Amino acid sequence: MSTPIRVAIMGYGNLGRGVEAAIAQNQDMQLLGVFSRRDPATIATRAPAYAASEIMAFQDRIDVLILCGGSATDLPEQGPSYARHFNTVDSYDTHAKIPEYFERVDEAAKAGGNVSVISTGWDPGLFSLNRLLGQAILPDGLDYTFWGKGVSQGHSDAVRRVPGVKMGVQYTIPAEDALARVRAGEEPTLSTREKHQRECFVVLEEGADQEEVRQAIVNMPHYFADYNTTVTFLSEEVLRRDHAAMPHGGYVLRSGRTGDNTKQLMEFSIKLGSNPEFTASVLVAYARAAHRYAQEGAVGAKTVLDIPFAYLSPKSGAALRKELL
Amino acid sequence: MSTPIRVAIMGYGNLGRGVEAAIAQNQDMQLLGVFSRRDPATIATRAPAYAASEIMAFQDRIDVLILCGGSATDLPEQGPSYARHFNTVDSYDTHAKIPEYFERVDEAAKAGGNVSVISTGWDPGLFSLNRLLGQAILPDGLDYTFWGKGVSQGHSDAVRRVPGVKMGVQYTIPAEDALARVRAGEEPTLSTREKHQRECFVVLEEGADQEEVRQAIVNMPHYFADYNTTVTFLSEEVLRRDHAAMPHGGYVLRSGRTGDNTKQLMEFSIKLGSNPEFTASVLVAYARAAHRYAQEGAVGAKTVLDIPFAYLSPKSGAALRKELL
Repeated sequence: MSTPIRVAIMGYGNLGRGVEAAIAQNQDMQLLGVFSRRDPATIATRAPAYAASEIMAFQDRIDVLILCGGSATDLPEQGPSYARHFNTVDSYDTHAKIPEYFERVDEAAKAGGNVSVISTGWDPGLFSLNRLLGQAILPDGLDYTFWGKGVSQGHSDAVRRVPGVKMGVQYTIPAEDALARVRAGEEPTLSTREKHQRECFVVLEEGADQEEVRQAIVNMPHYFADYNTTVTFLSEEVLRRDHAAMPHGGYVLRSGRTGDNTKQLMEFSIKLGSNPEFTASVLVAYARAAHRYAQEGAVGAKTVLDIPFAYLSPKSGAALRKELL
Repeated sequence: MSTPIRVAIMGYGNLGRGVEAAIAQNQDMQLLGVFSRRDPATIATRAPAYAASEIMAFQDRIDVLILCGGSATDLPEQGPSYARHFNTVDSYDTHAKIPEYFERVDEAAKAGGNVSVISTGWDPGLFSLNRLLGQAILPDGLDYTFWGKGVSQGHSDAVRRVPGVKMGVQYTIPAEDALARVRAGEEPTLSTREKHQRECFVVLEEGADQEEVRQAIVNMPHYFADYNTTVTFLSEEVLRRDHAAMPHGGYVLRSGRTGDNTKQLMEFSIKLGSNPEFTASVLVAYARAAHRYAQEGAVGAKTVLDIPFAYLSPKSGAALRKELL
């Protein structure tokens, strides 16, 4: 085996921890260190931990820097800034702002002579790939995406902002009957309410009124008003015991027609025990691709749509053709 | 819109007809003609039909030649031979011989300065892509492939070779309980018998013995002996009425673990009303990729594993990032 790919992690929350675990599963990779804005002494990692501010001292030793910050405030600043000095991979997921983010990272990566793979993960990411595949193969057809069952951070945050809520977790649940209709080739027009249900688990502040909190949640515009939402109240102890995991999942379907109105269906789905660990595993596979592009002398920003799957694998083209085709 | 991609079809069986229909669904493509070893006057196509022997006269006008012959005898000869003179796409599917076929086509395409995309379709093809994706993202895991429900040509041919069989169709059926166990993350070890059932529909020759034919089928080595196989006898009229379609489908699953033994599942599946029409649609999408590579000056053989999904789409990178990420 050739020299391992030297990877570093920027940001050590759930995603950063997932990346650390994923790197350990890939023998062609080596974790050089974890960088964080927190005091390195407080970082519970087996890898060397450093202050984020020290990273430039490692520029010559890091093949790929995996950015594990959030899309709201971290990545819009970190993405372009680190792309100037490192090959990077990130999971920037603010869908509407991806074109602008791409341009900014692309400019910085080109200026620095680096490769940056942006917006990996599963949506955007694997789901985007499957939407593109479905549209290219079945141009006469419709796309359907269902999310869940899984914890939505945005909706959980919304629940926690309701006065009287001490703790809360929200699950997005795809409607089985809607999914069944799509799979049957009906090509239904589905309302927001028909596609997903929302299930909230809430710990009340002392003295808060259950019915008032429930009404505030289920009638919240954008987040819950357009859905069938259930709210279940429980103790802090039970919430911590039963709702600490971060499962997620979802389905991308393409329902189309070929020839003389022949029905054709393509479906991709994932069922994740841990959303951050899976997203981290996708980041690590695309770190391998970033390294390969960099070795070939490529520069600039790329998305999952631009990268052949062969670049995700440690195996040679000949081995892949023999084993997988 | 720029100049359409000028496509020609070599071979006009079920697959060639599917390609003709698929090209009509793609506005950036134009069907230049259908080439066949049969007398062009007998080819029931709305496109111009020509003798295969005339094709060299069209060399300057064909951007991509889609090879629609079979893998047993047509493609091993046609693939390398046409790759020398045209950009080509094919669905060569003799899995064990793909590495050798790749080398032969690669040499010819490079000699001619052309691009050849080999072994597209769904298996090999889309299923290979999903096996690679699963292995790259979840290196600690297991692959599962189930085929069907669908008509297997190889097994239908085997049924038809049994003495006393006048006509026959064989369906491969994935075992629902095995699929459910994989989806549940059990990572089971499944025997051949546990994964698929086989269902045969047979029209007997006059005077043939039903039980003798049934025993000959269900005990046939390799094809049926290792499976639970049912044989249903029916009239020629009913067989023609109910079993003329060529549905197929299948599932590729990757069941893996991340972090501290967290279960993760990826699944890709297709449900096809017509196997040849869907395969044809895949060929046409990869014809677009072949054309794009040729315009970039690339040469040689490529497989689906080497080609970014963006090359399958008529849309620009910017449009894809905006709409699909």
